[in-house]
Amino acid sequence: MAKPFNRQFTLAARPQGLARLSDFRLIAGALPAPREGEVLFRNTLFSIDPYQRNLMGNGSSEWPTLNIGDPMGGPTVAVVEASRHPDFEPGDTVQTWSGWQDYAVSNGSDIRKLDPAGAPLSTALGPLGLTGFTAWYGMTKVHDFKPGGSLIVTGAAGSVGSMAAQLGKLRGMRVVGVAGGPTKVAMLKEELGLDAAIDYKASDFKEQVGQALPDGIDAFFENVGGPIFPVLMEHFNTDAKMVVCGTIADYSDTELPQGTNYLPRLITLIHYRFVSIKAFATPYVIDAFPEFLAAVAPLVAAGKLRYYEEFVDGFEKLPATLLSLFDGTHSGRKLIVRND
Amino acid sequence: MAKPFNRQFTLAARPQGLARLSDFRLIAGALPAPREGEVLFRNTLFSIDPYQRNLMGNGSSEWPTLNIGDPMGGPTVAVVEASRHPDFEPGDTVQTWSGWQDYAVSNGSDIRKLDPAGAPLSTALGPLGLTGFTAWYGMTKVHDFKPGGSLIVTGAAGSVGSMAAQLGKLRGMRVVGVAGGPTKVAMLKEELGLDAAIDYKASDFKEQVGQALPDGIDAFFENVGGPIFPVLMEHFNTDAKMVVCGTIADYSDTELPQGTNYLPRLITLIHYRFVSIKAFATPYVIDAFPEFLAAVAPLVAAGKLRYYEEFVDGFEKLPATLLSLFDGTHSGRKLIVRND
Repeated sequence: MAKPFNRQFTLAARPQGLARLSDFRLIAGALPAPREGEVLFRNTLFSIDPYQRNLMGNGSSEWPTLNIGDPMGGPTVAVVEASRHPDFEPGDTVQTWSGWQDYAVSNGSDIRKLDPAGAPLSTALGPLGLTGFTAWYGMTKVHDFKPGGSLIVTGAAGSVGSMAAQLGKLRGMRVVGVAGGPTKVAMLKEELGLDAAIDYKASDFKEQVGQALPDGIDAFFENVGGPIFPVLMEHFNTDAKMVVCGTIADYSDTELPQGTNYLPRLITLIHYRFVSIKAFATPYVIDAFPEFLAAVAPLVAAGKLRYYEEFVDGFEKLPATLLSLFDGTHSGRKLIVRND
Repeated sequence: MAKPFNRQFTLAARPQGLARLSDFRLIAGALPAPREGEVLFRNTLFSIDPYQRNLMGNGSSEWPTLNIGDPMGGPTVAVVEASRHPDFEPGDTVQTWSGWQDYAVSNGSDIRKLDPAGAPLSTALGPLGLTGFTAWYGMTKVHDFKPGGSLIVTGAAGSVGSMAAQLGKLRGMRVVGVAGGPTKVAMLKEELGLDAAIDYKASDFKEQVGQALPDGIDAFFENVGGPIFPVLMEHFNTDAKMVVCGTIADYSDTELPQGTNYLPRLITLIHYRFVSIKAFATPYVIDAFPEFLAAVAPLVAAGKLRYYEEFVDGFEKLPATLLSLFDGTHSGRKLIVRND
C-alpha cells in the first residue's frame, strides 16, 4: 500500500573515507503533486551501485555530486500512480532516475516505459540498465578491443565486471577474470565460462597471475584499482589498451598509500609498450543508451548473458546496502532493494 | 681526411642504471667494401639523443635493442665516398641510420639524399630529423589536441620539447613549458614565446605550477617523468589528453622510488576526469616521415621554428656526450658530434 507520506534518504554529510550510516538522513514529507504535463510515480525497486558513493562527493570527481540535503540519486523501477502527461497512464511501469525516495514526479523526459511482459523488471537496473550499459560502453565504444586478443577484467564477479567479461567472450576474446575468494573464482570459470580466473585474495596471487596470462594482456577492463594493479600491469603487451571503469578499492581513500611508488613504472610501461589508457563516465555518454539496448536486450532474452541479482527487502535498508559494497561483505551480485 | 680504417663504438655491456663509459668499446677494423647496388659513405655528423640509452637495453622496453658487440645506433649525416648504386654519386650528402662508426655501407633503402643548398645539414639530425619528427608526431598524430586548449610540455628546453612547444603555439594553444633553472626558463618565455614557464628546480616549484596553470591542463606532452609528474597531474582538466614521449628521469632507474605511491591517484584522476594517455615509438611510425618533412620543412625554412644546436668535436667524444644527457650537465640544446 502506498503510504500517505514520502520517505527520502538525503545526503546529511560528505563522507571522509568510507561512508557511514550517519552520512544519510531519513526524512518524510508530503507527496509531490504532479503539475500539468507531469507524472507521479512510486518507486518499487532501487539499484545499488558503487558509483553512488561518488555522488556523495569525495573531492576530485568530475561526476555530478549531490548537494547536502538532496535525496540520494540512482535509478529505480517505479509504477505510475497519477499522470497529467499524455504518454503515461496509472499502472505503467517505468525506469526512473529518482533515487532514494518513495515517490517522485517527472515531466517524462527522464523516465522510460518498461514492458512488464518482457525481461524481468529488475533487469532494467542490471544487465539492461546502467550496469549493463557501463560494461557495454567500456567494451565497445572506448577502445577498439581486438577479437582474439586477451582481456583481463577486474571485479569480474561484480555486476559490471561479469557483463564486461561475458561481452568479451561473445567478442571472441580470451578472457581472464579477477575476483576475491574461491567461490567467485569457480563462478567465473564454471558459470561465465571464462578462460581463466585469478583469486586476488590467495597467497599465491602472483603465481596465479603468471599462469593465467601466458600471452600477456591486450585489453584491460579495470573496475577495482588498489594494490593488485601493479602486479597486473607488468603483463601489458605492446599496444595494450585499458579502460578505467572504476576503482572501487580507491573510492574511499583519503590518503595515498606509502611504500613503493609504482607511478614511474606505469609511465615507463606506457612509454615502452605503447599502452593506451582511457576512461569514461556514463552520465556524459548516455545518448548511446538506445544503441546499447538494441544490442544487448536480444542477448539477455536469448540467455547469452548471465546476470546475478540479490534482493534486499525494505526501503530503510538502502544506506546499509550501499555500504555493504565497500566493507567486504558484498557477494558480488547486483544488489536491488525492494520497496515495502 | 678519411682514415684507412673504420672506428666503431660498440655496445660492450648492458648498463645497470646510468650508463658508463665502460659500457662502450672502441674498436677499429677494415673499411667495408660496397657490393653491387651498395653505397659506401663516411659519417660526418652524429645525433645524440636520449632514446639511445634505450638501445643499450634496460629490461622492459619494446624498442629495438642492440646486441652486445653491435655498433651503437643512431642517425648521422654522411658523405658518399664510393657508389655502386645508380641513385648516388661520390660527394652526395645523405642522412643515414648507421650509428657510431666512421664508415658504413647501405643498399640505399635506409638513406636519403640531403640538399646542401637547403637548410643547414645539421637540421637533418634536429628539427628536420628524428627529433622534429618525434615532436610533430606526438603533437599531431597521437591525440587530437584542440587549438585554444592549454598544453604543458616537460623538458621544454630540450630538442624534442622545444619543438613540441613551438608546434603547440603554431596550433593556437596556450603553452606552458617546464625546464630546470632560470636560464632555460627565460629562454622558454623570451625566445620560444611560451605563455608561461615553470622551473622544476626552484624551491617554489609547486606555487609556480599553480600560477602557470590557472585553467588546468588540456594537453600534456611528457618528456621527463620523475617526481614532478605527480604535482603536474593534479591539474588535469576533464578530458585531458597526454602523450608519453619520453621519461628521461626514469630511463636509468633500476629500483622504484619509495615513499608515497601515486599510482592509485593517477588511476583515480584518469577515472574521474576521463584522462586519456597514449604513447608511441618512432621506429613503428616512421612511414609518416615524408608527411612530417612536407609539413615542417617550410616552417624551419620560414624561421617559424627555432632550434638550438651544440656541436662537439671528435668521434671519440660520442660516449661521454651521450652520458651528459643523463648526469645533469647537458644544456638542453640538441647535441651533435662532428667527426674529425
